[in-house]
Amino acid sequence: MSLHITSAANPRLKALATLRRRRGREQTGQTLVEGYDELGLALSAGVRPETLFLCAELMADPARQEDVVEAAAAAGAEVITLSRAAFEKVAYREGADGFLAVVPAVFASPEDLRLPDQPLLLIAEGVEKPGNLGAMLRTSDAAGVDAFVAADPVTDWGNPNVVRASKGTVFSVPVAAAPTTATLQWLSARGVRLVATTPDTDTVHTDVDLTGPVAIAVGTEKTGLTDQVLDAADVRVRIPMSGKVNSLNVGTSAAIVLYEAIRQRGTGR
Amino acid sequence: MSLHITSAANPRLKALATLRRRRGREQTGQTLVEGYDELGLALSAGVRPETLFLCAELMADPARQEDVVEAAAAAGAEVITLSRAAFEKVAYREGADGFLAVVPAVFASPEDLRLPDQPLLLIAEGVEKPGNLGAMLRTSDAAGVDAFVAADPVTDWGNPNVVRASKGTVFSVPVAAAPTTATLQWLSARGVRLVATTPDTDTVHTDVDLTGPVAIAVGTEKTGLTDQVLDAADVRVRIPMSGKVNSLNVGTSAAIVLYEAIRQRGTGR
Repeated sequence: MSLHITSAANPRLKALATLRRRRGREQTGQTLVEGYDELGLALSAGVRPETLFLCAELMADPARQEDVVEAAAAAGAEVITLSRAAFEKVAYREGADGFLAVVPAVFASPEDLRLPDQPLLLIAEGVEKPGNLGAMLRTSDAAGVDAFVAADPVTDWGNPNVVRASKGTVFSVPVAAAPTTATLQWLSARGVRLVATTPDTDTVHTDVDLTGPVAIAVGTEKTGLTDQVLDAADVRVRIPMSGKVNSLNVGTSAAIVLYEAIRQRGTGR
Repeated sequence: MSLHITSAANPRLKALATLRRRRGREQTGQTLVEGYDELGLALSAGVRPETLFLCAELMADPARQEDVVEAAAAAGAEVITLSRAAFEKVAYREGADGFLAVVPAVFASPEDLRLPDQPLLLIAEGVEKPGNLGAMLRTSDAAGVDAFVAADPVTDWGNPNVVRASKGTVFSVPVAAAPTTATLQWLSARGVRLVATTPDTDTVHTDVDLTGPVAIAVGTEKTGLTDQVLDAADVRVRIPMSGKVNSLNVGTSAAIVLYEAIRQRGTGR
C-alpha cells in the first residue's frame, strides 16, 4: 500500500526542496530526477530510486507509464502518490508530467572510473551552465565516450537542471569530478594524451591523431581553458572558424572534436 | 539632440511590444536587437538600425561602448535615451545591458540568395525552438555556410529570441525562409545535392561525399525530417550513435555533419 500526500506542507515534500541546492545534495548524497523519460533512462542505467512521487492526473498515459512505476518499485523505491497541488509544488520544471524521484547522486572521482585500455574521454573545465553540461552528456552518450570528467566544476552532476538537460544521460555516461590539478595528474598517470581546444593555435583538430588513449578538454565559453590545462596539454587544437563571431557554443565544439575522434577511431558505426 | 523618455507608458515604447510578436514583425518589417555585442555584430554585418534605445545606467562601460552608439547614428538611427524604469520595461532579456535597437527584419526567399558555384547550405525543416535556430546560426557563421534556409518555418528569423541566441549571427549568415516544397524545387533547379540526416539509414555521414554543391537538411528533434524531404534527398545519412538515447540535439547534429563537410572540402583552415 502506498502513501498518499495531499498537503504541500508535508515535511516529506519540504525535504525535497533541500535537494535543489548543491549543499543539500552533498549532505544527503541524493538528487532529483523528474520526468517519465528521464526516470526510465536512469532505471535502465541501473539507478535505484529511493522514493518515487507520482501524480496520475498529470501523466500523459498512466496505464502505459506503469512500467516505470513497476521498475522503480522493483528496484526498491518507496512509492508515494501526490495530489496535483502537492506535486506541482515540488516539481521544478514547466510541464510537470507526474513523475519525480529521489535517487542517489553521483559523486565519483576520476580514480573510481573503470576505463578500457584506450579510452576516449571528455574533460570540461569550469563549465557552469547546466544546459551546456547536459548537451555534452547527450553527445558523450551518443559518441560512446568512456568517461566525462568535470574539472574544477562550478555545477555538480546532481544539479537537477543538468539531469534534465542531459535527458537522463548523466546516469548512462560514466561521470566524475575533481580539481583541475588532480584531473591532470590522473590523466598523466594513466598515460592519456591531453588534447586541449583553444582558438589560439594554428593546429586544426582534423590534423591531429585522435586515436589511442585521448582526453579532449574544453573550457568555458567566456575564458576558455586555463593556462594550467593549456600548459599540460600534449597538443592544442582549434576548430576552423570563418565567421565574425569567434565562439562556437562549448557543447558544439566538444561535439565536433569528439565526432572527429569517432571518425578517426572507426568506432560507433 | 536626442530624445529622452522616462515614462514606460510612452507610445514609442508601447509600439516596441508589437515587435515581440511575429505578426507585428511581418506587418512592420522590423525586429528588435538587444545587447551591445549583438548590436555591434549586426552593424558590422551591414544592418542599419532605425532606432536605438539606450540606458547609460545599465551599461557595463558607457564610455567604451560609445562606439556602437556612434556607428548606429552614422547608419542613420534615431537615438533615444530611456530612464532605467522605462528601459527595463521594454527590454526582453534578463540582465539588460542598456542597448536595444529596432532594425529591419530579414524576410528573404531562397531566390534572393546570392550563392557561389559550389555552395554549402544548411536546411532546417520545421525547427521551432529559437535556441536551436540560434545555435545553428552560430555554427553556420563559424563553418562559413553559404546560406541557411528555414523550410516550413515555425519560427521567423526576426524572432528576438533567435536574434539573441544567435549572438547576432542571424545578420551575418545569409538566411531565407520558404515552404518545404519551394525549398526542394529551388535546390533541384540550382543543382544542389540534398543530404538528409535521419537515424533510419545504414549510411554514416563520414562515408558520403560532401564536396561540391551540397545542402545538409535537419528536421525537428521529435519527428525528424518529413517524408517529403527524405524522398527528395539524393542521399540519407546518419550520425553514428552508441548510446541509449537515440537523439543528439538538432544543433549538435547539424554541427557534426557541417564540420565533416568542412573537413572534406578543406575550407575554413
